[in-house]
Amino acid sequence: MLIVMKPTATQSEIDRVLEVIDTLGFRPHPMPGASRTAIGITGNQGAVDRAHFENLPGVADAIRVTKPYKLVSKDLRPERSVVKVGSSVIGGEELAMIAGPCAVESPDQVFEVAEVVAKSGAKFFRGGAFKPRTSPYAFQGTGEEGLKILAEVRDQFGLNIVTEAMDEYGVDLVEKYGDCIQIGARNMQNFSLLKYAGKASKPVLLKRGLSATLDEFLLAAEYVMAEGNYDVILCERGIRSFGSHARNMLDLSIVPALHKITHLPVIVDPSHGTGRNYMVDPMARAAVAVGADGLIIEVHPCPEEALCDGAQALLPNQYLELYSQVAAIRKVVQPEAETVSV
Amino acid sequence: MLIVMKPTATQSEIDRVLEVIDTLGFRPHPMPGASRTAIGITGNQGAVDRAHFENLPGVADAIRVTKPYKLVSKDLRPERSVVKVGSSVIGGEELAMIAGPCAVESPDQVFEVAEVVAKSGAKFFRGGAFKPRTSPYAFQGTGEEGLKILAEVRDQFGLNIVTEAMDEYGVDLVEKYGDCIQIGARNMQNFSLLKYAGKASKPVLLKRGLSATLDEFLLAAEYVMAEGNYDVILCERGIRSFGSHARNMLDLSIVPALHKITHLPVIVDPSHGTGRNYMVDPMARAAVAVGADGLIIEVHPCPEEALCDGAQALLPNQYLELYSQVAAIRKVVQPEAETVSV
Amino acid sequence: MLIVMKPTATQSEIDRVLEVIDTLGFRPHPMPGASRTAIGITGNQGAVDRAHFENLPGVADAIRVTKPYKLVSKDLRPERSVVKVGSSVIGGEELAMIAGPCAVESPDQVFEVAEVVAKSGAKFFRGGAFKPRTSPYAFQGTGEEGLKILAEVRDQFGLNIVTEAMDEYGVDLVEKYGDCIQIGARNMQNFSLLKYAGKASKPVLLKRGLSATLDEFLLAAEYVMAEGNYDVILCERGIRSFGSHARNMLDLSIVPALHKITHLPVIVDPSHGTGRNYMVDPMARAAVAVGADGLIIEVHPCPEEALCDGAQALLPNQYLELYSQVAAIRKVVQPEAETVSV
Amino acid sequence: MLIVMKPTATQSEIDRVLEVIDTLGFRPHPMPGASRTAIGITGNQGAVDRAHFENLPGVADAIRVTKPYKLVSKDLRPERSVVKVGSSVIGGEELAMIAGPCAVESPDQVFEVAEVVAKSGAKFFRGGAFKPRTSPYAFQGTGEEGLKILAEVRDQFGLNIVTEAMDEYGVDLVEKYGDCIQIGARNMQNFSLLKYAGKASKPVLLKRGLSATLDEFLLAAEYVMAEGNYDVILCERGIRSFGSHARNMLDLSIVPALHKITHLPVIVDPSHGTGRNYMVDPMARAAVAVGADGLIIEVHPCPEEALCDGAQALLPNQYLELYSQVAAIRKVVQPEAETVSV
Repeated sequence: MLIVMKPTATQSEIDRVLEVIDTLGFRPHPMPGASRTAIGITGNQGAVDRAHFENLPGVADAIRVTKPYKLVSKDLRPERSVVKVGSSVIGGEELAMIAGPCAVESPDQVFEVAEVVAKSGAKFFRGGAFKPRTSPYAFQGTGEEGLKILAEVRDQFGLNIVTEAMDEYGVDLVEKYGDCIQIGARNMQNFSLLKYAGKASKPVLLKRGLSATLDEFLLAAEYVMAEGNYDVILCERGIRSFGSHARNMLDLSIVPALHKITHLPVIVDPSHGTGRNYMVDPMARAAVAVGADGLIIEVHPCPEEALCDGAQALLPNQYLELYSQVAAIRKVVQPEAETVSV
Repeated sequence: MLIVMKPTATQSEIDRVLEVIDTLGFRPHPMPGASRTAIGITGNQGAVDRAHFENLPGVADAIRVTKPYKLVSKDLRPERSVVKVGSSVIGGEELAMIAGPCAVESPDQVFEVAEVVAKSGAKFFRGGAFKPRTSPYAFQGTGEEGLKILAEVRDQFGLNIVTEAMDEYGVDLVEKYGDCIQIGARNMQNFSLLKYAGKASKPVLLKRGLSATLDEFLLAAEYVMAEGNYDVILCERGIRSFGSHARNMLDLSIVPALHKITHLPVIVDPSHGTGRNYMVDPMARAAVAVGADGLIIEVHPCPEEALCDGAQALLPNQYLELYSQVAAIRKVVQPEAETVSV
Repeated sequence: MLIVMKPTATQSEIDRVLEVIDTLGFRPHPMPGASRTAIGITGNQGAVDRAHFENLPGVADAIRVTKPYKLVSKDLRPERSVVKVGSSVIGGEELAMIAGPCAVESPDQVFEVAEVVAKSGAKFFRGGAFKPRTSPYAFQGTGEEGLKILAEVRDQFGLNIVTEAMDEYGVDLVEKYGDCIQIGARNMQNFSLLKYAGKASKPVLLKRGLSATLDEFLLAAEYVMAEGNYDVILCERGIRSFGSHARNMLDLSIVPALHKITHLPVIVDPSHGTGRNYMVDPMARAAVAVGADGLIIEVHPCPEEALCDGAQALLPNQYLELYSQVAAIRKVVQPEAETVSV
Repeated sequence: MLIVMKPTATQSEIDRVLEVIDTLGFRPHPMPGASRTAIGITGNQGAVDRAHFENLPGVADAIRVTKPYKLVSKDLRPERSVVKVGSSVIGGEELAMIAGPCAVESPDQVFEVAEVVAKSGAKFFRGGAFKPRTSPYAFQGTGEEGLKILAEVRDQFGLNIVTEAMDEYGVDLVEKYGDCIQIGARNMQNFSLLKYAGKASKPVLLKRGLSATLDEFLLAAEYVMAEGNYDVILCERGIRSFGSHARNMLDLSIVPALHKITHLPVIVDPSHGTGRNYMVDPMARAAVAVGADGLIIEVHPCPEEALCDGAQALLPNQYLELYSQVAAIRKVVQPEAETVSV
């Protein structure tokens, strides 16, 4: 059930609706929009009786939602969301560029890349301190030490830190040291982790699972939002397919498909999405052309020495060239809908 | 690196090798076999020098392993493993039948099914107390209350309990109430959970992820074993494909492929693997014919009222009919290799 | 539209219905069944008025068909079809075994295999004279010479010949020399070829395309039948997926799915379906256990010298061992529905 | 084997090499490039002895080719090919725009669209007279009558005609009435058709099959070229995947992958590649951004009345808007390599 308030509704009318929802034993999710506030209701087992709300002052409509998701939906919030991440935003007019090494290896490696990223004009820095690796014998990340290095990058370069958490312990640490909690593709349906991140105070960057449908992807975001954390950014990073010309199949068609249904920002990771250095640039251009709100790009000063995923990392100068190309394309592509700050 | 001891090696010769491995800062994984003991070495970053071991008394060979996995491999243990689960085993001559409802809903529902399962001669009972659901608004399971009901089933019917854990809290509870910790398909690459289960004292039933390759599947098992828990059972439960005639694509060819590489038992879940009631019986027959070591079958007294996955559950009498058919096929199919108890 | 005649309908009543369909400018497809005749109508652009038929003598019902297929459907013919192929049948009580080399290479190679196949009790011999090869530089088959060798196999061993046609020229030659026209997976949606085969006088063995859905597969069969050739045998031979442990993903779940919808016989090709010698035996057992009406198995006296697909061919003694195993499983699996000869 | 001539080689030196190849019983494929001529050799069963060529006058090198394809490869021709189609080219500096209705339905419908397409500045007109339809009961095209309408479009608007052939009869007719023979995705491995088109005098536009790997796609093109028709244009049009948000999964990563290996032009069909009207525009932008040499776009004056694929057709004004957007992106994206006319 979705309660849509009138544009003229007062705060006390909104509070009255929240109170009624609470009294019924359900959970209210108020979402203030540009012109009016909508309130999602979750926690109900069956259908909720519209009669509880229709005649309350300030209520414009009580809509039954038949789709499996509510909070991610444009029904709840027709304007695109702009998510605040540290000192900047993702989902606004400016293309969000998140760049950095796959893994935090050493202060030197990180600072060398951070300097390039800051100089390029990007606002976000990525780097993994906890690495989900297919093999238990592969490099597993530098942990809290790595997060401390990332925190220094923020202090020194003013870059906002996006970094992955693999479990509750990781979420706590990323909240402490970083600006955005990344949840990786392999954990997209780790529902315990999603719920925990839903209680965190930092935004969540949720990567699409390798075989996730659009509905499953949105419902994973719904898990986070249903716990009260509405700051979710969706990220396409390639799906599994039969081909071998790229490591994964980057599914750019999901960008317009998501923008049609959800108000959440959608970004693209062409580095993991292709796994091939030479494809990152053309696929980054395509991602911006298709309307993505941002990009995540792996940059490494010395890809052949990288402790993970070196084959897809760009050299600093390749990254700068990429950024200038996508910026030119961004100017051509007008974002399709008005966006409004949360 | 794999150290293969001579058949005549004494326990003190084995202990000496373990000590050397420890001294080098690595981790030894002794695996006693029918005729000889093999010792896997993990924790090394680069190659281990064979010279450390070749001349120790009782050592037959020191083999460099180039495959990504070690402990799951038949190189380490040529005989098939028979995993003890509660009072019975999986991987032995007898087909392991694990049956029960998808979710634990109420004592009545559970006991009604348990009676049928016990009567059929099956040794294992399944039922989820924690349910990984695609939507946050779907029934999430009855939690610890459900586990207590399952524990009663064991006491009353002598059935060994296989039930899913979704996080560390769940692993602790399943260790307390159940006999086998199931890790679901969506958590197959939840590496933090795999490591935690690797420290548990109960065997782990690991389901293949929906887009997991054979190597990824084996490496997930390797994560559990690398922590010291060698009692792992692999389970094929359907992968994602383009078709819509079944909910998932049950990949039976992975059974002989796994048996060729790993000593671990391999079972099949035709209920989740097809998602269609009418397909469970023929695909269960096929799974046994292809050489699976066991089956997991969903049974519900009243599928149309099931709180989850009713469309694939069998009625008790359908289940009994299935069991008699697969038992007849099992008699025809001779397990391909000798098996030996751990 | 489907006209179902009464069990008591006379031939002249049936003829009258055929005449009316013809007069309306449509095409009638009479399908005599065990207890009654059904007549499919094709060639209509929109809906056909039931009033034309309802009151004709001998008509039991005129059913509007909303499914995309008609002639393949059990609505038209509830009993399973038994297709006559040369001197034997496919779809009957006996498991149909079709065995032979991938390609016809030389008389010696062919006769050596044919002797084994005949001795095993199989009724059908396979062997390609026209080979669809991914590369234009690979061996393309021995053409008409090869077909003449196959015709000699029939004369000498009494085996019925199943062999592939890739174009109209090939269909004509297979009609001349063989007993069953195989249409390969890559040509499953070569609609011109399907239509041409639909006018042939020999039965058609239609292989599922590598990415064909169940509906697309059935509609390809419908193309053949709509031209008047009702003797179609469906063959699952593996689909494309992301895994690499087998060359293709053999989808056994399509066997019960097809049997639920269509009256046509369904066989399985575990040789192409896995592409791995060691998997052919277990997957053949599984195919019979799941209810397939037959198998196609590649046998070669010297697989490592085969001009194509040697990696999946069985040695003669492996083939004989396989046959004895699947025969034992066939005895256990009772065909699920009564079958009736056409 | 690939014979690379010196830049200074004379025509008589080239002719001498061709003669030697012929004498050896092989087939020569001379490919004149910007700076030098290369000659591919096909028809050899095993390896060709380099000694035959190394010392001939004018020969720079004789290279053994280990890849499965030769004529499509950049080894043979390092510069990108520019294919002449009627009065214009595909693969050159200008983005090739091919637009028109899915099917030729009537003169009025075709001329209405043709006028818009001509006005937009596009040089190519598409429209199917033979339609490969999944169901035998769906509209199968207007045949030769449709081709005559398309020929009139060329006469009246100066547009070059791209239209599909499904069999040899169709190839003959398209050669007569059209400018480019399209081979559809379902026929990508109809090798008899590929060979026949390889003998035609008009260029071939080859669409990628729904489950074709990059190698299979290139080898299909190689089939056409091996017969002597070197004017092949490759077209990505979506592959089969598990998702349902689009009808197919448009694989844009194959564009840079193909450009890395082959000299042939690569275009993209976002209409069939998505099957959704609202996705055509963003995916067309992405295709141009990724570096495609052209686009095929379906335009229909009245999509909801279209006899096929209406859901994906653009209205004329949507098409014009799309064209202006992709033209702006094309200006930003510099083609990565120099191109040279054949």
